[in-house]
Amino acid sequence: MGEVKLHGFWASPFSHRVIWALKLKGVEYEYMEEDLSNKSQLLLQYNPAHKKIPVLVHRNKPVAESLVILEYIEETWPENPLLPLDACDRAMARFWINFGEQKNNRRGTRENREEVAQILKTIEEKALGDNNFFGGNTLGLVDLSFGWLPHWFEVTEQVQARSYWIRLLCRVLHAWAQNFKQVPVIRDNLPDPQKLSAHLKRLRGNLLKN
Amino acid sequence: MGEVKLHGFWASPFSHRVIWALKLKGVEYEYMEEDLSNKSQLLLQYNPAHKKIPVLVHRNKPVAESLVILEYIEETWPENPLLPLDACDRAMARFWINFGEQKNNRRGTRENREEVAQILKTIEEKALGDNNFFGGNTLGLVDLSFGWLPHWFEVTEQVQARSYWIRLLCRVLHAWAQNFKQVPVIRDNLPDPQKLSAHLKRLRGNLLKN
Repeated sequence: MGEVKLHGFWASPFSHRVIWALKLKGVEYEYMEEDLSNKSQLLLQYNPAHKKIPVLVHRNKPVAESLVILEYIEETWPENPLLPLDACDRAMARFWINFGEQKNNRRGTRENREEVAQILKTIEEKALGDNNFFGGNTLGLVDLSFGWLPHWFEVTEQVQARSYWIRLLCRVLHAWAQNFKQVPVIRDNLPDPQKLSAHLKRLRGNLLKN
Repeated sequence: MGEVKLHGFWASPFSHRVIWALKLKGVEYEYMEEDLSNKSQLLLQYNPAHKKIPVLVHRNKPVAESLVILEYIEETWPENPLLPLDACDRAMARFWINFGEQKNNRRGTRENREEVAQILKTIEEKALGDNNFFGGNTLGLVDLSFGWLPHWFEVTEQVQARSYWIRLLCRVLHAWAQNFKQVPVIRDNLPDPQKLSAHLKRLRGNLLKN
């Protein structure tokens, strides 16, 4: 299927969404670590609009934005499907991916206990239900898109003092988080907790300074 | 293909994205106007997470969120394709749809002249180029997703005093906006400007009161 390269950053949950999808599909790729304080000319050329990782390069053509890359991977390597085959179920999966993404984008602007609790309740009741995974019995794109929650939140909890909503999340979606982290492809492809914790502390320190 | 219903609101650009796609595909549907101050039980049942229009109901199954509905329509009625056939070009189309959506979501939080100018410049140079439409020579999903800009902005300009960035937009993307509004399906399916203007004035009045 031609050469595949991934430009990513070791601590980025968005890079990891793509790594997990490629591994689940069994796609071989070359990983290019980006220094986010000094981005490569290639990255700037591949993603001039956002200048952000991750960028997947397949047959010399770049695809940017993690959710767009996930759809591309699903279309290009249809084996081990990560979206349901039924169009209506696919739409539902995309609905929840968008739901999580919109809530995530708004996190910086208004973040309060009741709102977060309501979001988690909605996700749990309406999207997860009694399933082991959002994809049913196996991982799917919804799981990958929410996949930053378990590991990154656990590590963030160690960094931040005010962590009530992380604990809340861990209680509500705890069973799913455990299922998710036990999948070998996920377990074997998570950033080192100590290193991630130090990185997030540094980021937080810089934020508080500015 | 079974019964198709669309729950929408006459002044909503998100409803219109779906209307345009259905008309371009030649899909017959029943339109259900929603009173947003008193939403129907059906709408709340169909979209419990967001409680928002538009919702497309196909064979009694609901699909919510305009961009998710557009993908569903494209998959379910593949004739007159609205996404490119090549996976890489499809990814690029989705990239620009997401780009517009993210910028739109952030509009409320930070809106300043230079940022808007930069966004428009990026869209114009990188996404539109020398094409008549974002989809090339014919309308595609990117055009539909940006389709709220020409009509709604023109009407908004009449409502708001401070409209420099709308004028800026009209200059930069003017040719595309004209092409877009000349497509019969678009031209014949836009809300009445006077009625829309009165509606937006009312909304703005309510906003200023709160």
